[in-house]
Amino acid sequence: MAYKVGVVGTGAIGVEHIRRIEQRVGGASVVAITDIDGARARSVAAEVGARVLATGREVIAAPDVNVVVVTSWGPTHEEFVLASIAAGKPVFCEKPLATTAAGCRRIVEAEVKHGKRLVQVGFMRRYDAGYRGLREVLAKGQVGHPLMVHCAHRNPSVGDGYTTDMAITDTAIHEIDVLRWLLDDDYVSAQVVYPRKTRKASGHLHDPQLVLLETARGVRIDVEVFVNCTYGYDIQCEVVGETGVARLPEPPSVLLRSEARRSTGILVDWKQRFLDAYDVELQAFFDDLAAGRLTGPSSWDGYAAAETADACVQAQQTGTVVPIAARERPAFYAPSR
Amino acid sequence: MAYKVGVVGTGAIGVEHIRRIEQRVGGASVVAITDIDGARARSVAAEVGARVLATGREVIAAPDVNVVVVTSWGPTHEEFVLASIAAGKPVFCEKPLATTAAGCRRIVEAEVKHGKRLVQVGFMRRYDAGYRGLREVLAKGQVGHPLMVHCAHRNPSVGDGYTTDMAITDTAIHEIDVLRWLLDDDYVSAQVVYPRKTRKASGHLHDPQLVLLETARGVRIDVEVFVNCTYGYDIQCEVVGETGVARLPEPPSVLLRSEARRSTGILVDWKQRFLDAYDVELQAFFDDLAAGRLTGPSSWDGYAAAETADACVQAQQTGTVVPIAARERPAFYAPSR
Amino acid sequence: MAYKVGVVGTGAIGVEHIRRIEQRVGGASVVAITDIDGARARSVAAEVGARVLATGREVIAAPDVNVVVVTSWGPTHEEFVLASIAAGKPVFCEKPLATTAAGCRRIVEAEVKHGKRLVQVGFMRRYDAGYRGLREVLAKGQVGHPLMVHCAHRNPSVGDGYTTDMAITDTAIHEIDVLRWLLDDDYVSAQVVYPRKTRKASGHLHDPQLVLLETARGVRIDVEVFVNCTYGYDIQCEVVGETGVARLPEPPSVLLRSEARRSTGILVDWKQRFLDAYDVELQAFFDDLAAGRLTGPSSWDGYAAAETADACVQAQQTGTVVPIAARERPAFYAPSR
Amino acid sequence: MAYKVGVVGTGAIGVEHIRRIEQRVGGASVVAITDIDGARARSVAAEVGARVLATGREVIAAPDVNVVVVTSWGPTHEEFVLASIAAGKPVFCEKPLATTAAGCRRIVEAEVKHGKRLVQVGFMRRYDAGYRGLREVLAKGQVGHPLMVHCAHRNPSVGDGYTTDMAITDTAIHEIDVLRWLLDDDYVSAQVVYPRKTRKASGHLHDPQLVLLETARGVRIDVEVFVNCTYGYDIQCEVVGETGVARLPEPPSVLLRSEARRSTGILVDWKQRFLDAYDVELQAFFDDLAAGRLTGPSSWDGYAAAETADACVQAQQTGTVVPIAARERPAFYAPSR
Repeated sequence: MAYKVGVVGTGAIGVEHIRRIEQRVGGASVVAITDIDGARARSVAAEVGARVLATGREVIAAPDVNVVVVTSWGPTHEEFVLASIAAGKPVFCEKPLATTAAGCRRIVEAEVKHGKRLVQVGFMRRYDAGYRGLREVLAKGQVGHPLMVHCAHRNPSVGDGYTTDMAITDTAIHEIDVLRWLLDDDYVSAQVVYPRKTRKASGHLHDPQLVLLETARGVRIDVEVFVNCTYGYDIQCEVVGETGVARLPEPPSVLLRSEARRSTGILVDWKQRFLDAYDVELQAFFDDLAAGRLTGPSSWDGYAAAETADACVQAQQTGTVVPIAARERPAFYAPSR
Repeated sequence: MAYKVGVVGTGAIGVEHIRRIEQRVGGASVVAITDIDGARARSVAAEVGARVLATGREVIAAPDVNVVVVTSWGPTHEEFVLASIAAGKPVFCEKPLATTAAGCRRIVEAEVKHGKRLVQVGFMRRYDAGYRGLREVLAKGQVGHPLMVHCAHRNPSVGDGYTTDMAITDTAIHEIDVLRWLLDDDYVSAQVVYPRKTRKASGHLHDPQLVLLETARGVRIDVEVFVNCTYGYDIQCEVVGETGVARLPEPPSVLLRSEARRSTGILVDWKQRFLDAYDVELQAFFDDLAAGRLTGPSSWDGYAAAETADACVQAQQTGTVVPIAARERPAFYAPSR
Repeated sequence: MAYKVGVVGTGAIGVEHIRRIEQRVGGASVVAITDIDGARARSVAAEVGARVLATGREVIAAPDVNVVVVTSWGPTHEEFVLASIAAGKPVFCEKPLATTAAGCRRIVEAEVKHGKRLVQVGFMRRYDAGYRGLREVLAKGQVGHPLMVHCAHRNPSVGDGYTTDMAITDTAIHEIDVLRWLLDDDYVSAQVVYPRKTRKASGHLHDPQLVLLETARGVRIDVEVFVNCTYGYDIQCEVVGETGVARLPEPPSVLLRSEARRSTGILVDWKQRFLDAYDVELQAFFDDLAAGRLTGPSSWDGYAAAETADACVQAQQTGTVVPIAARERPAFYAPSR
Repeated sequence: MAYKVGVVGTGAIGVEHIRRIEQRVGGASVVAITDIDGARARSVAAEVGARVLATGREVIAAPDVNVVVVTSWGPTHEEFVLASIAAGKPVFCEKPLATTAAGCRRIVEAEVKHGKRLVQVGFMRRYDAGYRGLREVLAKGQVGHPLMVHCAHRNPSVGDGYTTDMAITDTAIHEIDVLRWLLDDDYVSAQVVYPRKTRKASGHLHDPQLVLLETARGVRIDVEVFVNCTYGYDIQCEVVGETGVARLPEPPSVLLRSEARRSTGILVDWKQRFLDAYDVELQAFFDDLAAGRLTGPSSWDGYAAAETADACVQAQQTGTVVPIAARERPAFYAPSR
């Protein structure tokens, strides 16, 4: 008995998730769709045989919809997630859970009040085989206790609309979530350092940036964010432990020997990098629903990411080390595995 | 409108394909199942909500079954594939297409007579991202015309029932097919050389073996087959062209620095190695059916592989270079892309 | 006409340099030796056919000695280098040039007053083929302007006598010099961050440490110093430029496939890591002397390293970002290439 | 007390060896030189302060010459090596020891008659750190008994004067010697296969070639010889043992990430590849002389290489598997380590 999904928002990621649910994921199908661009919604709906509704509220309220997927414009996420909780329907919400930490907090409170986890946030890196391999290495103790993490998040280029704070809220946000999960730890301070600026960046943009995070257990993390690196989309993550070092694998590529170089390809399009992770993420969401217990990134994780991002943005603006207040995790949110 | 699949044979690969069709593949579901072990068939059928029929013939004849998957014992393949063709139903058949080249030939003739491709053989390596990357490198001319291919097919170990000819028919058969596809070429001779034998092999088994193939265009291929290599399941393929060399990527793995070694993992279980390829293969089969045109490994490919394997086994027995007669490919079998 | 070398100090590095000059370096031979341990000096002298003198002063003053090598205890370096300058004899001095920045400054002043470069400091990494390759990549503009450098300096373990400040003065000092040379830039600030401490370190030792340096051009450098990493002696250096990233090569090692791992060896003994660099360094010193112009690490470089190290130690103690005052480089010290 | 060396022949390799002995090698200096091109001999002699003699015979006979280095034209090697033996003087002879197996045999007989090893042949690969590492891996049993060896010897291009047999006598000859040493084994048969020819080769040249060798213990070796591969000078060697696989390291090179590729450099000039090995080889020769016992590649090794090369050339011409007669190694030639 497949889940009947209502999708709110058919932008790029929305359409991809719809096709994913239809073609790659077992146990679910899309029955209702909405978008502020009605023509676009109708086109996708026709493709998968779903019906179009006028608003997100209607989709959430539709009697045959028993799972909601929120892929609308960021500022609308909070409303639709809260409505889903109010309707008692499980909801998968793309990043961000809400555009402010306060908004995330409201979702957490609503969910706790509801008494059962209903929300999963679209932090897909937790489902990437490479990060999962890294987590397994840590869990097995193959490098001992983690002490430091060195990361890089590099994009070939960004448009002029990309601003300095987006290096945190759009880019480093992925490291913020996945490292917290990888280390099973919480952040206590953030600092941002601006290296020499690349001439490839817009005049208003600090690029690259070095984000320094400290965790409750004292692990020190440095994340290089470099969104105009020109050469490719390149994600690096190295965990230094007491007895060894573990590094995220590079995506596989044919090894070429030609013109006096031995080379492999680097992806340029970020969408290629975590393609499999999206599939696994959604499959896991529905499998968890079927098993009666959500274990993926929770509202609490969305809230923690938002608070950390706030501290990082403040660190960008002040040039100081910004403390991140410890918030007691409600027992309700057992660590997701 | 999903394809309704009947599955003949629920051994290990049969059960995996059934689950794959249900959980990973869009546009198809399993409706009828049979196996000589009725209890096993019933157990799997219950899992996916299909009904059990008494024989393969009944599955193929069932009015609601419009696609057949043959995963029964090898010697029964020919019969079920011919029956599917006779019923005018598309059929996906696991390796081997038939246990003899003559059997494959009969299938080719039946299919040509039917007038339209109905058969796809389960040579999954053609759907592996690594081999596809390699083929793309060749197609783009990044290493020029291929001149040589160096391969290795290594298993950690095999049981005592594994015999010397199985190094060809069970193991090298994968290279025989995938290299023919990779090079878009045909074999003209085969030779087998026996290196010093490993003490890990059964007394009756020549292990390792070196299989030397020559193609119509003069490309020379060496395939090391080593089925008791102990250290892992390791597939290597390197194409040497006029201007460069291209090598199959290794499966990605966390890079570990510990105990004075920098290391990555090697798979041990062969089933892990081409897991994704099986998913892609079946999805492509159903997508091709929907598009009205099969493009995967054909009966002709199954026949060519069988003829080449026969020559290799003869080469094992005689120690000589065995010619492989050129068979004109019917226009019916346009090269699959 | 070979240079006649007097060596002051026959500890481990002294004996190695003596043998190096005799066996690996052309154009020089050792004629006079001294050490506070007379027996040790006599034993080495006998090995290479040199004579033993009572003091460093005597070695420097000996009429047949026309080049001095100082490999004595650190605190004596300043005296012997100044004496060599006073005698107008070229002198190769092992690290540190002097134990204080003030001492280095006095040497700089004496040398400038002398009117010609006489001093080379033993920063051997500048002669390592890997670092030279990296510098060539930068010089060719293959990664554009450098923006960041990520480094790691890891030792398997250190004795209990190793103190927190030695992470700077004994360990990071190599990065401090070689990166200044690599980037052709000067430092303007230093910060030190203490990650979670490894349980493998002595109670009094902060290990690992993260040293953050900023250069005049704004390049940001992070150096992980981890002297009880257990797994090996591992030197990493990655330069991130505007259009690409260049990484120091790892020492070559046989690639092994065994026990489900694909692995290469990591050195454990630091002495092995830059063995070739020591040979090249001394050969270059004598070749430069023959060419009438020293181009290796100068007194000024020794002085700059000492000032930077002082700032780093202060940063360790204060936890703050410590500015490094810009000192105008005398024209006398043209950048060494 | 340094060895006084007489050098016969000042072609490219002769001049390099002369400079090497003067500048890189301890314990030896060049005192006498000859060449058929007197001007060239005088120029080099002036550079190192040696005197010029009219003929090789005179150099060998000179009373102050106590070691001979033969780097003249190949066809003259036999005469000069025999003359050195007759004079009782140690002689280092570049490849080939003699241009025929019969010539090598005469040298072996003369040396045995003399009663003590005097001859070392210039097979420098045995002194390459990579091959030595590989040998150590084998000696430690890290891959178990060797069963197969896969090799490639690739040059960017060769001149029109390079003929098909030179693929053996000039190119594969290095593998022939170094693998015999690596495996501590002898060859019993040879076969040569011609793959599709590259269009980059001269009309008269078979390029690439696949040389298949079999050893007394049954190890099977395949050597790809490809002298117009265009992309670089690339030497590959992989030993497959009962429990693992060991591969020759690639020369280290800066890892570059740029333009969507992750790449390292491949050498183009073969002279760079074994530069260090030449230094080590000559140093070891003089160290062995000082220790009173030659352990490097012997006359017997030169003879074995010549016999194997003869068989390979015959295999090229006949297309058959050519047996290589077992010759009993005189006890005089204990295996060199």
